[in-house]
Amino acid sequence: MINAVKREIPEFIEGYGKVKPFMGAYANIGDVVKTSVKIKSVKPNDKKVLPSIKDALLKCGIKDGMTISFHHHLRNGDYVLNMVLDEIAKLGIKNLTVAASSIFPCHAPLVEHIKNGVVTKIYANYMSGPVAEAVSKGLLKYPAIMHTHGGRARAIESGDLHIDIAFIAAPTCDTYGNINGVEGKSACGSLGYAIPDAMYAEKVVAITDNLVDYPACPIEISQEYVDYVVVVDEIGDPKGIVSGTTRITRDPIGLRIAKLAAQLIDEVGLLKDGFSFQTGAGGTSLAVAAFVKDIMKKKNIKGSFAAGGITGYIVDMFEEGLFKALFDVQCFDLKAVESYKNNKAHQGMSASMYGNPHNKGAVVNNLDVMILGATEVDIDFNVNVTTGSNGIIIGGSGGHSDTAAGAKLAIVVTQLTKARLPIIVDRVTTVTTPGETIDAVVTERGIAINPRRQDLLEKLKDSNLPIFTIEELKNMAEKLTGVPEKIEFEDRIVAVVEYRDGTVIDVVRQVR
Amino acid sequence: MINAVKREIPEFIEGYGKVKPFMGAYANIGDVVKTSVKIKSVKPNDKKVLPSIKDALLKCGIKDGMTISFHHHLRNGDYVLNMVLDEIAKLGIKNLTVAASSIFPCHAPLVEHIKNGVVTKIYANYMSGPVAEAVSKGLLKYPAIMHTHGGRARAIESGDLHIDIAFIAAPTCDTYGNINGVEGKSACGSLGYAIPDAMYAEKVVAITDNLVDYPACPIEISQEYVDYVVVVDEIGDPKGIVSGTTRITRDPIGLRIAKLAAQLIDEVGLLKDGFSFQTGAGGTSLAVAAFVKDIMKKKNIKGSFAAGGITGYIVDMFEEGLFKALFDVQCFDLKAVESYKNNKAHQGMSASMYGNPHNKGAVVNNLDVMILGATEVDIDFNVNVTTGSNGIIIGGSGGHSDTAAGAKLAIVVTQLTKARLPIIVDRVTTVTTPGETIDAVVTERGIAINPRRQDLLEKLKDSNLPIFTIEELKNMAEKLTGVPEKIEFEDRIVAVVEYRDGTVIDVVRQVR
Repeated sequence: MINAVKREIPEFIEGYGKVKPFMGAYANIGDVVKTSVKIKSVKPNDKKVLPSIKDALLKCGIKDGMTISFHHHLRNGDYVLNMVLDEIAKLGIKNLTVAASSIFPCHAPLVEHIKNGVVTKIYANYMSGPVAEAVSKGLLKYPAIMHTHGGRARAIESGDLHIDIAFIAAPTCDTYGNINGVEGKSACGSLGYAIPDAMYAEKVVAITDNLVDYPACPIEISQEYVDYVVVVDEIGDPKGIVSGTTRITRDPIGLRIAKLAAQLIDEVGLLKDGFSFQTGAGGTSLAVAAFVKDIMKKKNIKGSFAAGGITGYIVDMFEEGLFKALFDVQCFDLKAVESYKNNKAHQGMSASMYGNPHNKGAVVNNLDVMILGATEVDIDFNVNVTTGSNGIIIGGSGGHSDTAAGAKLAIVVTQLTKARLPIIVDRVTTVTTPGETIDAVVTERGIAINPRRQDLLEKLKDSNLPIFTIEELKNMAEKLTGVPEKIEFEDRIVAVVEYRDGTVIDVVRQVR
Repeated sequence: MINAVKREIPEFIEGYGKVKPFMGAYANIGDVVKTSVKIKSVKPNDKKVLPSIKDALLKCGIKDGMTISFHHHLRNGDYVLNMVLDEIAKLGIKNLTVAASSIFPCHAPLVEHIKNGVVTKIYANYMSGPVAEAVSKGLLKYPAIMHTHGGRARAIESGDLHIDIAFIAAPTCDTYGNINGVEGKSACGSLGYAIPDAMYAEKVVAITDNLVDYPACPIEISQEYVDYVVVVDEIGDPKGIVSGTTRITRDPIGLRIAKLAAQLIDEVGLLKDGFSFQTGAGGTSLAVAAFVKDIMKKKNIKGSFAAGGITGYIVDMFEEGLFKALFDVQCFDLKAVESYKNNKAHQGMSASMYGNPHNKGAVVNNLDVMILGATEVDIDFNVNVTTGSNGIIIGGSGGHSDTAAGAKLAIVVTQLTKARLPIIVDRVTTVTTPGETIDAVVTERGIAINPRRQDLLEKLKDSNLPIFTIEELKNMAEKLTGVPEKIEFEDRIVAVVEYRDGTVIDVVRQVR
């Protein structure tokens, strides 16, 4: 069958099941059910601290075929996923599903567990590095399922993704399972992605390298949800957890793109009091923030909020009074961690509050502007951030599709070409985010506005901005690089890309 | 049938259903299920602010037989319950169930709605004033169901109490439904009791007198859970919402009781580093805190936490460094509101986190000492705080049974006699809290230790404290007052008293 982004999708995928095809970004919103949760309640004198991960696994009744979950606030410094899987492998357990909010190069040891059948299925919102390559090459028994950040929360809350045991990497935890991310040697700030796991998993194990006396205030994940606590020497490598600082790009092309994006935001009339904004931690994205900041200060604009993974750069804007509040699902650098710890208007949010399309309103719904990246954009404005130019998985939506769907103006910022390949193409290799939710593409050579947004084109009709059609931008790119050769794939589906509502927007096939 | 506190309870109660008899305070803990929740998710551009309560009722599909819920943070200053019920009555709706966490004298207009059949069933953790009297006199069609604070959270989370529409009195709310209790003219501090309602009701309506721009940080109840927002002139009378200050008693009898209670805590060895404590806002209870404070300061003890409804007196102890943290489910006075607003270690908690026996561990489980009141205590140490000397409902458990079950040392402080009636009796009129969870009764004439606590009696064997048996205290009381006449009741059951686990610990019958 053909879905709403014109992808041919099987009706049934072995190891995944029956496919619900993507029907449009806002097609499946309305009546939903949050699933029931089985838990074991405790008596007043029950203790939670256990001597080892192995003890926790045994207490939780680990067995073949279970689904275990992890969150990615420790990013490429995370030790917890590897530690837990090593213990599970030692117990001889097989056929596990790993539901990790994201998988990074540091999780390379997972490849061995895939090869030996300990892990046969993976859910992730983002994956890069050896595990992503292994999946792309067909090593995983069943197709990986790629969620968006909000879509993962939705899947957990709806019961589509049932978690038997959630492992929470806890920078600070007390003896009764209260967790925060702002204290301890592995402090990472907000623990937003772990919250649905904690609330909906049958068993929840906190793994910490900073056990403190009760209570671990400020509490981010409550004792209500945590069964056991295990202390380890180190939950992660601080160098991989948070950057010292995040910096705007110095590349003149990146700066030109950023400046055009900021001008676009201004010219369509969004830069006014109450302005809300999200951008990533990449150099060009941060540069957009820098140009936006200049305009806001010049015009004396007081914004409403900035959201997302929060960087020190956004904290600076907040502390200068340019935003009233920050919504933070994960802190990207130490400055963000400090601000999150000390300022009540630097507000934590769960993955569900951030981007779940199936609650009573996520934060993304209130975004005026979202700045997005892309590895490819096509002439339908569909965006690929899942696969690279060789067809191998190099990322995934994360919050890309969620914020694009919510924001009034979703802007893709990208160079026209990268490494002698055009970024704007006829048809993206993989659709991560549907074009109907992308409003503009900004490159160093010009800006394309989605023709669905006639209102924007109308506002820009007297603009000096270099406005082109997306086809014109594509042609410019192809003139520089030529038309790239098509990537060849095997038939086998190695990953299913779910849109945030749980429908299938695309599949990734095995690389040849 | 006879339950574990020797009360004869019918197997089936008309208008209530099949009875699960109370089997002991810790009999029903273990595997439980948190119920599923039906909600309606929203599209990015959907708005939540509605012009009136009537519009919200219509949008929520109000109809005969529904269950609507309210929380009691505005206490005897609350306007919201009355406003909503007046609108519902105008619409001609009948046969409603009102699930209010507590009902106060200010809710007198509810009596009319009971009389005319708009409201036929009530759930409450506490009720006093005209509604309680009306219930006692048999005016309500079906028996009222009396929960504990933790038991109400349990009932909501398990699905035993299904809420169709929850109305949240919101001291501050933004246009997208984020709520906090710390700003606005009706600021009341923590909104802990409203959290289960918000999370589990099908529809949630925020009613506010302080609508602010998005976002209303610090957010206590998230936009994820709120369907609609309605602005009214006033959600309550500030004079009834929070006291200016809460004061310790000046009565010499109260002071003697408090001093004995503090000495008891000290002599059994609980007053040491890590000490945790809860007490009510009554004059004698606060006096216990004052004496405990003196001992802590003298011995240079650093406590762990104080919990509960928080008063300025407890905030003072916290700010002096006697406690590391406060757990707050509701603020009793303005000083508590200010502290809750400004200090991250003054930690909010939901009713479930506070006292639900069916989660992975409530805060009450970590209490060393709880100071409790009583209208009657019997020789099995059962406590009545539900009915008065005339048999009429004058309160209810609130957190009484929850904290008694959790605390290592649950102390009832009471005068031996009140208004020429003995407080210590053969058999309490109504069992609110089972004797197995009460460890000591402290009166001005002496202290009785529950014989189940031989460990305490052992520790106190060389004490100079006036230790008696509970029978001896009862005899002292009866010598002063004589044996009171038995209250006469009709057969009809007007209220069912549920223990925190949902079993029936007692019933209240209609007064003659």
